[in-house]
Amino acid sequence: MSPNSRLGSVQAQLEQHRLNAILITHLPNIRYLCGFSGSAGVLTVTQRHAIFFTDGRYTEQAHAEVGEVKVIIRRGKSGIASAIEWLAGRTSLRRIGIESTRVSVAERDVVAHSLGRTRRIVSAPPIVEQMRMVKSSDEITKIRTACELGVRLFDGLLHQIRPGIPETEAAGKLEFAARKAGVDQMAFPTIVAGGKRSALPHGRGSRAPLPRRGFVVCDFGVILSGYCSDMTRTLHIGRPTAEARRAYEAVREAQQAGLEAVKPGRTVGEVDSSARKLLYSKGLERFFTHSTGHGLGLEIHEAPRVAAAQRERLRPGMVITVEPGVYLPGKWGVRIEDTVVVTESGCDILTKCPKELLSL
Amino acid sequence: MSPNSRLGSVQAQLEQHRLNAILITHLPNIRYLCGFSGSAGVLTVTQRHAIFFTDGRYTEQAHAEVGEVKVIIRRGKSGIASAIEWLAGRTSLRRIGIESTRVSVAERDVVAHSLGRTRRIVSAPPIVEQMRMVKSSDEITKIRTACELGVRLFDGLLHQIRPGIPETEAAGKLEFAARKAGVDQMAFPTIVAGGKRSALPHGRGSRAPLPRRGFVVCDFGVILSGYCSDMTRTLHIGRPTAEARRAYEAVREAQQAGLEAVKPGRTVGEVDSSARKLLYSKGLERFFTHSTGHGLGLEIHEAPRVAAAQRERLRPGMVITVEPGVYLPGKWGVRIEDTVVVTESGCDILTKCPKELLSL
Repeated sequence: MSPNSRLGSVQAQLEQHRLNAILITHLPNIRYLCGFSGSAGVLTVTQRHAIFFTDGRYTEQAHAEVGEVKVIIRRGKSGIASAIEWLAGRTSLRRIGIESTRVSVAERDVVAHSLGRTRRIVSAPPIVEQMRMVKSSDEITKIRTACELGVRLFDGLLHQIRPGIPETEAAGKLEFAARKAGVDQMAFPTIVAGGKRSALPHGRGSRAPLPRRGFVVCDFGVILSGYCSDMTRTLHIGRPTAEARRAYEAVREAQQAGLEAVKPGRTVGEVDSSARKLLYSKGLERFFTHSTGHGLGLEIHEAPRVAAAQRERLRPGMVITVEPGVYLPGKWGVRIEDTVVVTESGCDILTKCPKELLSL
Repeated sequence: MSPNSRLGSVQAQLEQHRLNAILITHLPNIRYLCGFSGSAGVLTVTQRHAIFFTDGRYTEQAHAEVGEVKVIIRRGKSGIASAIEWLAGRTSLRRIGIESTRVSVAERDVVAHSLGRTRRIVSAPPIVEQMRMVKSSDEITKIRTACELGVRLFDGLLHQIRPGIPETEAAGKLEFAARKAGVDQMAFPTIVAGGKRSALPHGRGSRAPLPRRGFVVCDFGVILSGYCSDMTRTLHIGRPTAEARRAYEAVREAQQAGLEAVKPGRTVGEVDSSARKLLYSKGLERFFTHSTGHGLGLEIHEAPRVAAAQRERLRPGMVITVEPGVYLPGKWGVRIEDTVVVTESGCDILTKCPKELLSL
């Protein structure tokens, strides 16, 4: 979908949801629709207009990035203040949609108060998030390129992992290599978590040294040309115990079961339950304390959620992660994660990288 | 203020604002009040209770970090769902405050709908943000330590700046050095922007090589023990033109004027106008397209805003930035920024680092 047809698609949905206008304020949605990658602004879309409002800090950037959409910047005014001013003069735009999952109660109140009682401020459905779920071939190429870089970075990280090195230093080396490879920024702070700290499913790296023996969870993602990658591998320093080896193999089988459930027409909930059932069969399901995955693209977490009972059906072009894990508090944790794109017949793994248990 | 007295202070203000409970959902506020540094949860405070609700991913982390506050985690439930369940059983808690600048319209609607019509969901004033504006001596020490590290990192960066090196590589080297020094993460993506790109006031680093001749804006911050630093210096590669030199000196004088306006009892608006007036006297005010600064602490941008007409009065213990800049679109930009703590008589610069124009 070209930016032009994307805006057309939003305009088509305005009518469907009986909206005269919509205020797009979520930055990844703005970027998706008009190309602006800065950190403040409002894209206002009506049947006849698409105007991007921002502030003086972004004069040059907005004109450079925003193609066919008109840009309005009013001196000393924020983007939202300028948008409100513009709307105030167009009283026929009565029903104005906002992105209710993104707009704060206070921001909504300012818009409603400024425009007065003749207007109706309406919670719009997640129109743009729904569009963004199915990626264009250009977007898939960008995510694929980011994931391929991720795999190369992981190869480099393997040389850093050894007992005694601080987790932050190993993570920092990976991030520096990413920078040199041209990444915009990391998708999230890199996690290198060893020993007991690997049991924290969302633990960040700490200054703690890697252990002489134990699991090391490595979870990281880059942003390249605006698009994210995401992958996790778990290594073992020293010889794993039989229990650790069994748990690792269980997670690996669960991840494979999740991957095999990724097919057009299946629900994301089925992907989650496939991974979960496998861990249940091994008596480990209660240690799998998060959902199986998430969509990714311009954001590291976007629709769909790959979680229990979620009914969104997989369609070709969706990009999701499959990342079951098992965490024994105070002992250790294991997680294996791939980013995949849904194809006509199944899925294509974008983070192609071995998953056998690696003992360093 | 100890975490304990912080909660006491929130409880005292509940009464003042006629609230039976408040749901603290903004993560830095949660960290400030109970120590939890993870990325999901709700701290519910009533006159008699303070309970932190989170989900299964954070079981271990919550129990490790949250001291005197009770932790509740319900299997398969989000923190907010558990908090709603708890509130549902306590019908005497009728007026429930939310952080309206932080809670989305959709989240508010879920809370209101779940608790039914007998409860009133009220937009609470920014109680915790107000408390956080004035730092404790322990917090100031942490920010000072982060700023001192920032200065050392900048010294290292100076050795990287030369024509032809990609901006992202110079930024990446600084970030790697930061990681090795033990920072949790950068406060924001490091900006190293050279030549024409220095004219983008919030430009990120790009893969573009640094120019043979021109300004290079270096703006970065670390997070160390949870607290941020922020500083900007602008260098020149090669010999600056007379015009560039004049603009640099004007920004330096404007920054000095801003610093001299930082005194207890003065308003933050006066700090802004002092810097702005100086640039006006040089005919450069229209190229200063952003506000003069911001508070910082657990967040890189927090109260107070140091901007035109802002009336918040400076008090000892506040930590703010002073960062005027001048940006000539398509040509170049200059910004100089310090982080300072307000003292009894003026301010103490935490980012002690020379500001003479450095030609490399």
